Order: sequence, then C-alpha cells, then structure tokens
Amino acid sequence: MSSARPIIVVAGVGNGSGTGAATARLFAKEGYRVALIARNADHLKNTAAGITAAGGEAVPFPVQAYDAASLTSAFNSIKSQWPDSVLRVAVWNAAHGVWKPFLQITDEEVTEALNTNVRAAFAFSRLAITAFKENDLSEIGKRGALIFTGATASLRGNTTTSAFAAGKFGLRALSQSLNKEFGKDNIHVSHAIIDGGILTDRVRERRNDPNWEANEDVRLSPESIAKSYLYLTNQDRSAWTWELDLRPAHEKW
Amino acid sequence: MSSARPIIVVAGVGNGSGTGAATARLFAKEGYRVALIARNADHLKNTAAGITAAGGEAVPFPVQAYDAASLTSAFNSIKSQWPDSVLRVAVWNAAHGVWKPFLQITDEEVTEALNTNVRAAFAFSRLAITAFKENDLSEIGKRGALIFTGATASLRGNTTTSAFAAGKFGLRALSQSLNKEFGKDNIHVSHAIIDGGILTDRVRERRNDPNWEANEDVRLSPESIAKSYLYLTNQDRSAWTWELDLRPAHEKW
Amino acid sequence: MSSARPIIVVAGVGNGSGTGAATARLFAKEGYRVALIARNADHLKNTAAGITAAGGEAVPFPVQAYDAASLTSAFNSIKSQWPDSVLRVAVWNAAHGVWKPFLQITDEEVTEALNTNVRAAFAFSRLAITAFKENDLSEIGKRGALIFTGATASLRGNTTTSAFAAGKFGLRALSQSLNKEFGKDNIHVSHAIIDGGILTDRVRERRNDPNWEANEDVRLSPESIAKSYLYLTNQDRSAWTWELDLRPAHEKW
Amino acid sequence: MSSARPIIVVAGVGNGSGTGAATARLFAKEGYRVALIARNADHLKNTAAGITAAGGEAVPFPVQAYDAASLTSAFNSIKSQWPDSVLRVAVWNAAHGVWKPFLQITDEEVTEALNTNVRAAFAFSRLAITAFKENDLSEIGKRGALIFTGATASLRGNTTTSAFAAGKFGLRALSQSLNKEFGKDNIHVSHAIIDGGILTDRVRERRNDPNWEANEDVRLSPESIAKSYLYLTNQDRSAWTWELDLRPAHEKW
Repeated sequence: MSSARPIIVVAGVGNGSGTGAATARLFAKEGYRVALIARNADHLKNTAAGITAAGGEAVPFPVQAYDAASLTSAFNSIKSQWPDSVLRVAVWNAAHGVWKPFLQITDEEVTEALNTNVRAAFAFSRLAITAFKENDLSEIGKRGALIFTGATASLRGNTTTSAFAAGKFGLRALSQSLNKEFGKDNIHVSHAIIDGGILTDRVRERRNDPNWEANEDVRLSPESIAKSYLYLTNQDRSAWTWELDLRPAHEKW
Repeated sequence: MSSARPIIVVAGVGNGSGTGAATARLFAKEGYRVALIARNADHLKNTAAGITAAGGEAVPFPVQAYDAASLTSAFNSIKSQWPDSVLRVAVWNAAHGVWKPFLQITDEEVTEALNTNVRAAFAFSRLAITAFKENDLSEIGKRGALIFTGATASLRGNTTTSAFAAGKFGLRALSQSLNKEFGKDNIHVSHAIIDGGILTDRVRERRNDPNWEANEDVRLSPESIAKSYLYLTNQDRSAWTWELDLRPAHEKW
Repeated sequence: MSSARPIIVVAGVGNGSGTGAATARLFAKEGYRVALIARNADHLKNTAAGITAAGGEAVPFPVQAYDAASLTSAFNSIKSQWPDSVLRVAVWNAAHGVWKPFLQITDEEVTEALNTNVRAAFAFSRLAITAFKENDLSEIGKRGALIFTGATASLRGNTTTSAFAAGKFGLRALSQSLNKEFGKDNIHVSHAIIDGGILTDRVRERRNDPNWEANEDVRLSPESIAKSYLYLTNQDRSAWTWELDLRPAHEKW
Repeated sequence: MSSARPIIVVAGVGNGSGTGAATARLFAKEGYRVALIARNADHLKNTAAGITAAGGEAVPFPVQAYDAASLTSAFNSIKSQWPDSVLRVAVWNAAHGVWKPFLQITDEEVTEALNTNVRAAFAFSRLAITAFKENDLSEIGKRGALIFTGATASLRGNTTTSAFAAGKFGLRALSQSLNKEFGKDNIHVSHAIIDGGILTDRVRERRNDPNWEANEDVRLSPESIAKSYLYLTNQDRSAWTWELDLRPAHEKW
C-alpha cells in the first residue's frame, strides 16, 4: 500500500451543509485528501476552504453537469492534483429529486432524474472502480470503497415519487450488482438507505422549525451519516456490509 | 361502460413468439381489439395477420423508437383507428437487455437501457393512464389495467446485470408508485416478475435444445404468462394484485 | 390421474363468513369434494350444510386444536371419507392474531401465536405434501397445490404486531422453502399476502360501518380472495406463482 | 447516566469461539461488565475466565434452557451481581439450527427451532427492554441497545431450511417490530444478517480446510462481526440502523 495519504472523492456536496460535505470533513480529519465534486463552484470552494481552515486538505472539482464527460474530466484533474496518492474511497451522494403527481412529470424531468440518479452514477462508478483496480490491498484487505447514498424511495415507490423512486431503485440495483461483481476484487460497494429528513440548510429553510432542528430524535445529522460511511470504509474484508438503513430514533416507519 | 369492444395495447411484441404476442392473441380471443406496438414493422404485420386469420381483430402500430414522441403518435393512431372503442388494458412488455461485465458497459448502453426500460415506460404509462381516466368504471370496478413485465433482475442485481437491473428496478418502482397513486381512481397497475427462461424463438435458437423446449417444467410458456395477465385484468376492485412472480415448476431460485 | 372428483382441504374456516369458507364454496362449485377443518364444530357443520344445500359436497372435520395430532387425525378421516378420491388442494387459512404492545404479550401468548401460525402450518404441510407425493401429475403438470394465507404482517413488523408478525414471517419462510423444495416434484406452493381488511362477520361487527361494508373499493371480499386461490390452483407447471398480494383498489399502502 | 460501568448481556456464547464470545471480549475491552448466557456451564466459565485474564470483567450465567423462566432467573442474577450498574446492551446470539429435508423434520424439531429462535428471543427482549426503560438517556441519546444475530435464512427460505428459516424470519419480524415500537423510547433495536460461514470451532472442524480458515476473503471473523455490534451500539439517536448485512469479500450471493 502506498504510504501517501489516500484520496476520497465525494460527488454531491451541495452548499456544504449536508451529507456529502460532512463526509468530506470527517474523512479529512482521518487523514484523507478530499476531492469535492458538485455543480456550484462557489459553494464547492467554500466547503474546500472550510476543510483547509480546519487543517485538512480539500480541493474543489466543479462539474458543469453530472455526466460521463464532466466526471471523467474531474477524475483526471484529481489524479493530476495528487499524482503520488491513490483513490481509496468514492462517495456518490448526488441526487436529483422529483416529487410530483405522475401526470405532471414531463419526459424531460424523467430523463433528468434518470441522468443524475442513475446514468451519472454509472459513470462515477466506472471511474472509481477503474481506479480502485490499480490499487494494492490495504491492511484490511480492500482496494477501495464505493458508497452510495440511498433514500426511503430506494425501497418504496409512492404516490408522488414515481420518477425519484425509479432513479433510486435503479441506483440500488447498480450498487448491488457492483458489490457482487467486484467483491472478488476486494472492492467494497455499499448502499446506505437514509430513511428520514436530513438537517441540511435547504430542509432547515423549508421547514423553518427550530424545534425540529434542535431535536436529534427526529432528524438525521449529516455528521452521523458521515460516521456510518467511515465505518463502512473501515470494515475489513471478512465481514463487510452491502446495505444498511439509517433513521432518527423517533422516526415512524 | 361503452358497449363497444374494449381495446388492449401491447408494447413489445418482438417477432411474435413471446409474451407480448401471446398476450395479444389471448385478449383477441376474449373479444378485445388489439393494438400492437413494436419496432419491427414486418414482424408486427405478421403477428397482426395471424390474429386476424384466427378471427380476432388486431392492427400493427410500429414505432421508430421507444420514446415519448413515437408512443404518443401510436396512441393517437389507435384512437383514430377505433374511435368508438375505449382503451381498457395496456401491457408494457418492451425491454432492452444488457448483460455484460460492468466495465464493458458504455455510457451509451446505459442510456439505451434506461431509455427503453424506464423512460419509455413512463411515456407509455402517461398515455395509458390519461386514457383510462376518461373511462367509466367497468362491471368489476376498474377504469383500466396497466401491466408491466418484470424479470429476475427486477429484484436482484447480479454480476453482469448492472445496466439491465437498474432499468428493471426502476420499472418496478414506477409500477409500485402508479399502483399507489391511481388505485384511488380505480386504475389497476400490476407488475409480473418473470423469473426464468421464456420459450421464445430467440431463446429457442440460442439454446438449441429440444429437450428444454419440450419440457414445460423448466421454461415458461408465453401463453401461460398471458393467462396471468388476463387474470390480473379480470381481478375485481375488492382484491387486486400489484405483484406476482411466475416461474417454471422445476426452476431453482 | 384418478377420474374421481378431487379433494380440497381448507383449514381455518371460522364461522363461515371469511376466506376459508368462500374458498370452500368456490371449489365446491368447481367440482371438488371439500374437507373443512376448524375448531368450532357447530360453525363448521353449518358451513358444510350450506355447501351441500347449494349442490356441493362438503364434510366438516372439526379439530380440538391446531396441532399435529388433531390435524393428522383429520387427514386420516378425510381419507376414510373419500377413499376413491385424491387430495389435490390444501389451503392453510388458520391464524391466531395477537395485536398488543410488546410488553403486554406474555410468553403463553407468544407460544400460542407460534403454535397456530407456524407449528401447526408445518404439520398441515407435512400431511398435504405427503398426500400430494402419491398423486399422478394432473393435466396441467401438478401433483397438488398448497396455498397459505398471509397478511400485511407477513412483510412488515409494526408497533403492536411483534407476535403476529413473528408468526406470519415464519409462515412465509415455510411457504418459500416448500415452494423451492417441492417444485421439482411438481407440487405447487403459494403464499397470498392479504393486505387490507376482509369483509368477515367479525370485522363487520367490530367496525359496524355500513358504508365500509358496501364499498368494494375499501375492503376485500372473501369471494375475490377465493378466486385468486382457484387461479393459483389452475396455473400450469410452466408458469406458476409463489407469491402475490391482494388489496382493495383504494387501500393506502 | 450512571457513572458505574455499563453491563452488556450476551446470550448464545457457545464454546467461546464464535460471535457471542467475540462480542463479549470486545465490549469487555471497551469497559463493559459482561454477563454471559449459554447452556454449557463449563464453556461459559472458560470464556469468562479468558476475559478476566485479559483484564476484563465477565461472569457466567448458565441457563438450563433458552426459555422465559431460565432467562428471567439469569437477568435477576445479573442485577444482583452488579447492583450499581445498569444494563446498556443486550445481544441475542442464540440459535437452533435445523437443516433437513422438510419431510424429515418432526413436530418436535419444529417446536425446538421455534422455541429457541423466536420464543426465547421474545423472553430475552422482554427482559432487556424492561431493564432499558429504567435507564437514563446516554450521551448519545440512547437508553439501551438490543442486537439480534440473523442469518442468510432471515431473508430466504430454501430447500433444507424450512424450520430454521421460519425461526429466523420470525426473529427478524420481532426485531423490526421492536425497533418501531421502542424507537420513541430511545431504545435502539438492530438486526445483523450474517450472510456467510463464520470461523468458529465447530465450522472449523466440520470443514477441516486450513485454506478456508486462513483466507479472510471467504469466511467471517467473529471479531469483525463483534465490531459491527459495537458500531451499532455507538450510533447516536439521529441516525441509527435497524438492519445491516455482513459477508466476506468474495462471498457469492
């Protein structure tokens, strides 16, 4: 195993208040070089700066779109950025939510949901796994860890989730297929089902409910989700997890 | 309920030897006018001719591609063809299979798999449900029945099925969402998981195994699948099925 | 195949207003000799009399308890009753419901729930499958059909269903194991998930809501469930179903 | 939260070479007082002695059988043993395996499988949850953690697993019901699906294959499973897991 610090790439960092950014911060503290991928370059720069200010190492790699060309270009830039390091962890946290009555969802919206939630995840996975295959085994018997963020809609379609659930079901299928195909190469692919509301800026604004924010029993902290991603990454080859669910203590499900 | 003969539309008829065509033939015998949708116009014409020769009523509506524009055009033609009839049953049997090691699957192949298996199914569903919403309740309390053909890959990703399973999981999500959203409108949406090899011309040629063909214990007859679609169509409002599985008696699963 | 009329045995007939009795009546009309098993001898006699009055053939075989000894005795009596007929269909519809907060459920109640919902189902299955193995193949390639009635709690544990769900999950496991083990012997094992309220006398009384009773969109008719059991029985060997769900059109799920 | 060292109780410790004992050793190192429950008093004494020799604190509480009376007695003894400590973690690892063709499984064997795998788990859960309800919230917002060991047979019945799967499905139902019922009391209930062979003495002897033993890619280390139990225990209230699966890197599934 290379002695250089390992790289984690996180796609889907939003404005820096959610799961992707919390994962980036936690892995930075664990000694990873952090490559941040998202569409909003300004937000991404801020998130990277925050990590650097805290003593970590993070570089933004903004993409124009979540597509194969942009992601390939980002992965090439990451390699150029840290030629002496190897990619060890890849987190796919990008998602495109569509919650609408079915008859209001256009063909364009379906396409966009499939493009971000599934097709781009294929491209990201292709890049990550191709990189992992070059790696030596780590001390815990792993060439790399690829983690996908799922949702309630990964397991259940519902009245306004046809397009979102179609994407999230598809992502889950991808993650299971990859787990089965690349386990024999000691590449660990996982899928985390986030089954509840996450305390992000966007949800905070939408709900505008200080009680909800303050009550850890009813919403997910991005930092706690990040800890589960670190745990998955550190599972050794003899007992690793494809899928786990995460929800707040008081969630009704 | 209109006294005119009801219409069934079947998309995905192939060369006339599989599930779609068997469904068309069975419903024709039950008195349905049959609209056949597929890409190969010649095959489609032959399948329609066969139904007509047997005393049924079938018209081919070939499409250039499984996309929203082509399907919309086909549905318009169906309406023009039989202005006094209403659409009562819609069967989505089209599929685009991709079975390859993940790293050999290109972005184009992923896109094609998603386009046919999911995106086109959204377009087809939109057209069918929009039509059904205009219908009166039938005697069994139903405005229409929408049936999707699933596969083993609808429930399990596997080593060479990442793209196919992503599409089939996505289709299953769509079917479940629609069942939940449109049940209250008495539109019945179902999903059949075909968990085994179907005796079609293509599989027949590929396997080239007369024993397999002759042995009903080891492969699915398209006619038997068609019977399950008729059964689903005829379930009354008080007890209807979203999902069932179908496999041969001796299948290992 | 014997030319004598085939036998169906139905366990769990209650007071004659539910799924078991509706199944008995439907199969009687289809020409089956009906063996009725339940604990209340009076109710059972009435149900049998009703079938006989309608031109069918039904005999009550009351059991003291749902246990191996009583069921074995009942199966022996059935054989003696119709020595020239063979058992072709066995329906396990008996259930013991426990719906209570977990800490109020006693060890005795857990035991009773497991005894009726699982242990007795093992005994019933042993008797049915042993009988089926002696049969010739029917015209549709089947030695016998064994059908289990499941419930919402077959798929989901919930806040007051720990004991009931434990039993119903266990029953589902049994049905799946048997389907896989005896498919190769052309014995067809199925599991129907009844996901909603059934219009039985007991539920009728408890709800005391004529609107609910009259509205087929919101509750299951026992007769409609029975039709699905007949459909499963008549599926041929090339395409048969292990599991299907049944719920009313307007059910939220 | 009491400042005294917390107690973990582990039921199902076998001869000290498996998951239960590895969990006991790991939690002992983390500062827990360990109560060991199993049927073989000698083995249990040895396992406790090993933990004590390594600087931990462990006491054996042998039971005559896995039943409500014996488990109640053991929990009372645990309370007497450490009156100043509170129970914080309870692990149910006991199991009774039956792997036989269905027709060879007797009513007694079904009963035994249900008694150990389900009924005793209800009794153990009743005792653990009753104890947890008295606890203050811990720093991570938890009154207690109850963890169940599941298996491949928790999710799939198969040709020789009818009795075992019935028990394991039932246990899974129990764990899900409890998770939903007691989440609002900040009691965390989890279920780990162990989907592969565990390196225990028994399996070691049965396989007699040094290559298999040495190859961490193909079998589960009890110590790695134990780490997942510690992780589950330490998840905070905002994001906790009901279910995760664990298998070796090269497992085919």
